[in-house]
Amino acid sequence: MFAVDTVSHAFDEKIAKKINQKTKPVGALGQLETLAEQIARVQLTLNPKAKQLNINEPGMLVFAADHGIAKYGVSIAPSEVTRQMVLNFANGGAAINIFSRQMGFNLEVIDCGILTPITNVRGITQNRLGAGTAAIHQAPAMSLEQVKQGFSFAEEVVERHHLSGSNLIALGEMGIGNTSAAAAMMAAFLDLDANKCVGRGTGVDDKTFERKTALINEALKLHRSKLVSPVHILAHLGGFEIVQMTGAIMAAAERKMMVMIDGFIATAAALAAVKLHPAARDYLIFSHESNEQGHKLMLAHLNAKPLLALDLRLGEGTGSALALPLVHAAVNFYNDMASFESAGVSNVS
Amino acid sequence: MFAVDTVSHAFDEKIAKKINQKTKPVGALGQLETLAEQIARVQLTLNPKAKQLNINEPGMLVFAADHGIAKYGVSIAPSEVTRQMVLNFANGGAAINIFSRQMGFNLEVIDCGILTPITNVRGITQNRLGAGTAAIHQAPAMSLEQVKQGFSFAEEVVERHHLSGSNLIALGEMGIGNTSAAAAMMAAFLDLDANKCVGRGTGVDDKTFERKTALINEALKLHRSKLVSPVHILAHLGGFEIVQMTGAIMAAAERKMMVMIDGFIATAAALAAVKLHPAARDYLIFSHESNEQGHKLMLAHLNAKPLLALDLRLGEGTGSALALPLVHAAVNFYNDMASFESAGVSNVS
Repeated sequence: MFAVDTVSHAFDEKIAKKINQKTKPVGALGQLETLAEQIARVQLTLNPKAKQLNINEPGMLVFAADHGIAKYGVSIAPSEVTRQMVLNFANGGAAINIFSRQMGFNLEVIDCGILTPITNVRGITQNRLGAGTAAIHQAPAMSLEQVKQGFSFAEEVVERHHLSGSNLIALGEMGIGNTSAAAAMMAAFLDLDANKCVGRGTGVDDKTFERKTALINEALKLHRSKLVSPVHILAHLGGFEIVQMTGAIMAAAERKMMVMIDGFIATAAALAAVKLHPAARDYLIFSHESNEQGHKLMLAHLNAKPLLALDLRLGEGTGSALALPLVHAAVNFYNDMASFESAGVSNVS
Repeated sequence: MFAVDTVSHAFDEKIAKKINQKTKPVGALGQLETLAEQIARVQLTLNPKAKQLNINEPGMLVFAADHGIAKYGVSIAPSEVTRQMVLNFANGGAAINIFSRQMGFNLEVIDCGILTPITNVRGITQNRLGAGTAAIHQAPAMSLEQVKQGFSFAEEVVERHHLSGSNLIALGEMGIGNTSAAAAMMAAFLDLDANKCVGRGTGVDDKTFERKTALINEALKLHRSKLVSPVHILAHLGGFEIVQMTGAIMAAAERKMMVMIDGFIATAAALAAVKLHPAARDYLIFSHESNEQGHKLMLAHLNAKPLLALDLRLGEGTGSALALPLVHAAVNFYNDMASFESAGVSNVS
């Protein structure tokens, strides 16, 4: 459904030379140098004559949905909170609103399938795949057709941002119960027991943790013979928001846009996208590393070293919002910093 | 010379209540919550009726100086590079220029005593304590009078920013050889052998590393009986820029301004300031943790968990410049995020 190309490495030497002639010891800007290299590779693949990198009209896409498993006591909050928080997003009061405004993100909130739709409020994109998924320990979360429809919805959203001049999106999410779906997907993709994948989410106690792990193992057992492809894993274990996040990654990568990924849920979507299209990895910027073991394992599998580690456990895309200035910084030093020659500084490298 | 007061803890409950009523699980914004608490404590001490926190006119003060020890092969670059980089700062081409512009810092470059003064270029504050320090393995770096003069220069600079409405400064530095001075100070303050304090700086080889460690141990041995107070440690082992950074911290803390501290050199200055005035710690925001063992030890001693860890090893204040958006984010969520009540969200905490 998507045509995702890997980036060209034909410009690697040119890029390294440009970075190493800046007035600093070689490598002294650490992760910002790696990031500048990655963005340069993408943007020179698009336009080999580009002299400057740029980040235009960054879009923060927050995908919201409900999860059937949430009724079975896996979370600190009931499903109603998903809808309440979507209203909070629409009213501009949530953390992601504050941080998107500060950092210059164009925020779009997408209802991918919360329990009860919000009909009388402006500013929420209606891309609903249903009224919450089925409980994954009892039935497939959704059908293969719903996955396909989710990819298609996501592509429309990304295409709209792309046509408005955006070359970077970040993925946020809201969905009570979605750490269970993400942990189940992770277990399936990496062939791990649920106890390696389940974290404390936003702060569950021991009993909830054990129940969550048991339900996920039950789901994995129930669907085992059906988990034959990434799309099947998404359909049986995923969530409406996770499917659309996966679609958004692939649609953005197809358009050679950068994609910022932060926490556990977004990383599970990234894992699905990379399993579907390994070349999508070239476009992913990892923003935030959480303290959860499961997140660290997925990041290691994706060979990712996130930019921040601030003990965030909120989701919503907050990790990516907070990391955007570092992306701009990578672009800015690449574009504007003086070279040893231009500045008359002795090259110490 | 400075009157540094600790902050009031009378508002701690009020601050915690405000943060915990925001629409997020308790603690879900991690280090940003700790940071908001710290800033709130400082600003409510100043004005108990303050409803909003604020960061105004942030100042990036880059202190530059030369070091006598640099002639003895402890660095990858010769002392001339200090002057060349100060010119690069004046011309706007260095990393700290790029990042200060992006993040909204008012940048001031201060010549604290580079080898050859720069006389015909605008935009460099002349607060010279001499033409480079003495080589610390042969003589005291400077006199006690020079330390005092350095504190006084720093106070003038900070007072000027304060009068312009600034309530936050960040400390940057440039000085070939200054990791040797900082490592020697660290060894003296924490009573450690030099090999626990010396790092690879901007990338020295094994031979240089061994020579550097040996010279610092020599300096520690030579001055041992004189290292009777923080001011004596600064005079015998420090640098003209490190002394002025220490003074700037105390002058800012006296005025209840926040102070951002990034790498090895700035942290050594922070250590000196906190040894002189333990209450200064209340005003320090640690921006960046480097991979160097010595930096980690000083941070642990100061009970500091920096905001970023990006493998930077450049100095100039770049770590603090890159962390400023996180400081704004802490202030913004504290000021503007909706409460459970105002947003109609069920309190999940």
